[in-house]
Amino acid sequence: MDKVRVIEVKQSVFADNDAEAERIRRELKEKKTFLINLMSSPGAGKTTTLKRTIADLKDKIRIGVMEADIDATVDAEAIAAAGAKAIQIHTGGMCHLDAGMTEQGLQEIGAEDFDLVVLENVGNLVCPAEFDTGASRNVAILSVPEGHDKPLKYPLMFQVCQALVINKIDVLPYFDFDMDKVVSYAKMRNPAIEIFPVSAKTGEGFDAWENWLRQQTAAWNS
Amino acid sequence: MDKVRVIEVKQSVFADNDAEAERIRRELKEKKTFLINLMSSPGAGKTTTLKRTIADLKDKIRIGVMEADIDATVDAEAIAAAGAKAIQIHTGGMCHLDAGMTEQGLQEIGAEDFDLVVLENVGNLVCPAEFDTGASRNVAILSVPEGHDKPLKYPLMFQVCQALVINKIDVLPYFDFDMDKVVSYAKMRNPAIEIFPVSAKTGEGFDAWENWLRQQTAAWNS
Repeated sequence: MDKVRVIEVKQSVFADNDAEAERIRRELKEKKTFLINLMSSPGAGKTTTLKRTIADLKDKIRIGVMEADIDATVDAEAIAAAGAKAIQIHTGGMCHLDAGMTEQGLQEIGAEDFDLVVLENVGNLVCPAEFDTGASRNVAILSVPEGHDKPLKYPLMFQVCQALVINKIDVLPYFDFDMDKVVSYAKMRNPAIEIFPVSAKTGEGFDAWENWLRQQTAAWNS
Repeated sequence: MDKVRVIEVKQSVFADNDAEAERIRRELKEKKTFLINLMSSPGAGKTTTLKRTIADLKDKIRIGVMEADIDATVDAEAIAAAGAKAIQIHTGGMCHLDAGMTEQGLQEIGAEDFDLVVLENVGNLVCPAEFDTGASRNVAILSVPEGHDKPLKYPLMFQVCQALVINKIDVLPYFDFDMDKVVSYAKMRNPAIEIFPVSAKTGEGFDAWENWLRQQTAAWNS
């Protein structure tokens, strides 16, 4: 396997992150590239979800992945092995990506070559929600073992996301996780949020998630 | 149940967080109060671990708990119901506590009335590790579903902690979690780290964890 390219990004030089994010979004629209900002707690299954999504969709749409991490390249290597072009973004200790950092990644990967670029943000349910990266859509993954109360405790994350993937439903029998409650809590934060219960391990629920992703990608790029 | 007291803390006014943290630590030593800074990802089981620890130790040592959250009071209410004095600290959106915020909590709870005060930090494996709160010891909880690679991806957290609780070992059969690997990765970050595999659900492993906590509390307060 080729070594994954690693880029060290610097915090944005732009004073106005929101304006910078809007500019990125406009340019991606022109380039017909749909950018997903994928956020979750550490260990919720961002990389595993992505690997399965890539395996299912890579022959239908061109997918690129930008893996953001404080340190390490393990995720980018796993994604590259799954068959998508991946680059690794090192944040140099930063707990989130901003628009400027995202743009450095987009230039490095060559956003115009892809229908869909996924930015796997730093594993963190707090800070990434505060910074618009310029993504077309924000998606959060919450995993069953984390508990159904998370939208109560980390409100902003659920407020800024258009879709919520509830991962690890294969272990539902072993946890006190109330699916009805998590759905109602998430909709309390954002009534329009789309919710996809899945198991990245078994593939259960992936049809609905991948249909949404393809439909959203096609709509953005049309 | 009485309503839990909620305090809204402000980011520290002190320019030098480390100096402020050292001052807090000295004062706690004089007051014979041992302060634990408990950190983890969202949903790793900080509150559940604390509830069981309180139930087991509340007749032996005087325990107070400061629950930090961006929003919500669910955890503080659960702790109060478990029989310890608890206050809720709202960070106003902040992703971590600093020394000044911790001190506001210590004054509110009345640190001198307790042998052990536990600060349950905001659920976040990144930012809390960067700020010395003035705690006597830092403890991280990593849960089995999060995966054994976390010390590779979030190095600072494991570097700054004197103890690591590995929670949810009751679900080990359902996850690809390698206990030997996580121990070796954690020790790579901090060779002296004490590691306690536990299940806050079943109580397995709690003897060793609670013995360490009592021994450390007694040593600090002697």
